[in-house]
Amino acid sequence: MKTLLALFVVFYTLPSLAQRLVSPEIHHDHSVTFRLKAPNAKKVELQCEGIKETGMKMDRDTVWSVTTGVMQPDIYSYTFIVDGLPIIDPNNSLIKYNLLNTVSQLHIPGPNSLPWEINDVPHGQVHTVYYKSAVIGDNRHFMVYTPPNYDPLAKPGYPVLYLLHGFSDNDDAWTSVGCANIILDNLIARGQAKPMIVVMPLGYGNWKIITNGWKGIRNPEITLDSYNKFRESLFTEVIPQVEKAFNATHDAKSRAIAGLSMGGAQSLYFGLNAPDKFNWIGAFSSGEIRNIDERFPNINASLNSKIKLLWIACGQQDGLLANNQKLVQWLKSKGIRYNWIETPGYHSFMVWRPYLAEFLPLLFQE
Amino acid sequence: MKTLLALFVVFYTLPSLAQRLVSPEIHHDHSVTFRLKAPNAKKVELQCEGIKETGMKMDRDTVWSVTTGVMQPDIYSYTFIVDGLPIIDPNNSLIKYNLLNTVSQLHIPGPNSLPWEINDVPHGQVHTVYYKSAVIGDNRHFMVYTPPNYDPLAKPGYPVLYLLHGFSDNDDAWTSVGCANIILDNLIARGQAKPMIVVMPLGYGNWKIITNGWKGIRNPEITLDSYNKFRESLFTEVIPQVEKAFNATHDAKSRAIAGLSMGGAQSLYFGLNAPDKFNWIGAFSSGEIRNIDERFPNINASLNSKIKLLWIACGQQDGLLANNQKLVQWLKSKGIRYNWIETPGYHSFMVWRPYLAEFLPLLFQE
Repeated sequence: MKTLLALFVVFYTLPSLAQRLVSPEIHHDHSVTFRLKAPNAKKVELQCEGIKETGMKMDRDTVWSVTTGVMQPDIYSYTFIVDGLPIIDPNNSLIKYNLLNTVSQLHIPGPNSLPWEINDVPHGQVHTVYYKSAVIGDNRHFMVYTPPNYDPLAKPGYPVLYLLHGFSDNDDAWTSVGCANIILDNLIARGQAKPMIVVMPLGYGNWKIITNGWKGIRNPEITLDSYNKFRESLFTEVIPQVEKAFNATHDAKSRAIAGLSMGGAQSLYFGLNAPDKFNWIGAFSSGEIRNIDERFPNINASLNSKIKLLWIACGQQDGLLANNQKLVQWLKSKGIRYNWIETPGYHSFMVWRPYLAEFLPLLFQE
Repeated sequence: MKTLLALFVVFYTLPSLAQRLVSPEIHHDHSVTFRLKAPNAKKVELQCEGIKETGMKMDRDTVWSVTTGVMQPDIYSYTFIVDGLPIIDPNNSLIKYNLLNTVSQLHIPGPNSLPWEINDVPHGQVHTVYYKSAVIGDNRHFMVYTPPNYDPLAKPGYPVLYLLHGFSDNDDAWTSVGCANIILDNLIARGQAKPMIVVMPLGYGNWKIITNGWKGIRNPEITLDSYNKFRESLFTEVIPQVEKAFNATHDAKSRAIAGLSMGGAQSLYFGLNAPDKFNWIGAFSSGEIRNIDERFPNINASLNSKIKLLWIACGQQDGLLANNQKLVQWLKSKGIRYNWIETPGYHSFMVWRPYLAEFLPLLFQE
């Protein structure tokens, strides 16, 4: 393979040609050492969820490192900041892909009881379905989880959860970062969730919301247009395809919609305005819904007879907490029944994985 | 969303908070401008397939940039080298994920006739199948393409291509980088390839081949052990699962095995030693097979009556060319029939996408 190696050197300067660094290294006590070889850097910092240490020090081999205190089992995201420039850890293949800000991830393994740990249980499959969206005008795909031992002919069909990602996520975020398929496998194996289909569509109806970066979602017109076009695509393109290609039941009482952040706002906006489509709604750390009275012109207590679950949760250290508190007060003023959950935590998948694990067992129970 | 924004600032220094840069920017004449904001860098270079320009210059806003000459329609990979450190382009969400060296990609769109361009044709699906490998001792998955209008009950079943990735690739490389599903969709729509199932397993039987970095595959013992364990897992775990879960025909004449680089070497090693399993073999820019006489103890001209296609190709600028030429000479000396194709090109998906498009129409034709 020497020749192969020689060729790659022409194209890429590989740090891995030198002794490969171990980063992150998880020690027995669950402290962690992060390392980066950066001979020409003047300053290297670590930014990691849940970690206060940020300064890294360079040794004689020009390897920068920092060792944390003991970390709880979880999946954390982090970046290195090299002279002000955020980069992924080149020695770690576990990344959190994102349309605006791809970062690295650190998985501190924990007991099998943690919902996101892979267990020796039957596994479902994840399918990528490709289609041309006439509504949005692009080629795209959505992802579909089918449960273990999925039977395409079983009667009645499976209930379906439409599970929406956050702003700047791709449609694989709920599986590759949120571990939704693993969480489902575990809950179904324990008899704690009903076997269900989970559909994860791409939540952008207007690409300006992404191409403008964070200015996209701060722009009310672009955001509303993106939500509306995504809703139209979901209702007229995605749901019909799902119900044709998969063994899904076709009524509101076996359809749920839930999401995180932007996807939480979308779930509320789509779901509360379409109780004949979705009887189960979840909003995790929901983004702000502007002009709320305008967005929900028909909301009143008569919804309570249709909506079987309206589950709203937010982390106490999340900058969106006040917004979510305001939202539930508004729902209360309209006479709408809801479950409101506050938990410790930030705006992070470290909160959303547990939320999903708590939400799923409530679905489709009657 | 202001509060959401504020929170993220705590965790990540987002370059996108400033005016979002456009990078890469494809101009009308297919020249391309690459940009990176790096205020503290002393030197920033571009390393892009097919591009000689490497030096980038900083403007008053501390944005480094370079504009290339006219580029041919294709999908190129590239990185920025910032003071010696290779990084992905933070303003470009199109990445080439890799276990050792994730880089960015640039897609210069071309005519619909290019095999990797998405066309308005029926699309197949890609399925991720999760399982525990008892042979290798980990939890992993393989990916499966099913063709447009796949019928799980059609008789006879579909032929199956086992398509293997290269060293340091993940099992999604053939779809996410190699565009295998798009290429299949296009060829099937044109009647140029038979509708088939394509299985893309993870090609590591011993993780030391990856955790040791490039030293892994340069180590003959680790490499052979990894190939052998992967073969055992493929034969006893993957193929049985595929033939149970998908509508696949179960005989050698409707099974093919092919791969690129390490996957090419594996396809030859597995395929030529198991003509009762695979009658169709492809090796694209194959990696070296050490101790070749030992690896193929039973090879002789009687294989010609079993193997329907042995298709070997390599780029003329690939460092592995001499090795592949030696391989075909050795096959000739053993009286084995093969197709040998030399094309312009390096060790790159820019070669392997066309190879796949050339190889697929030859499969399962009788």
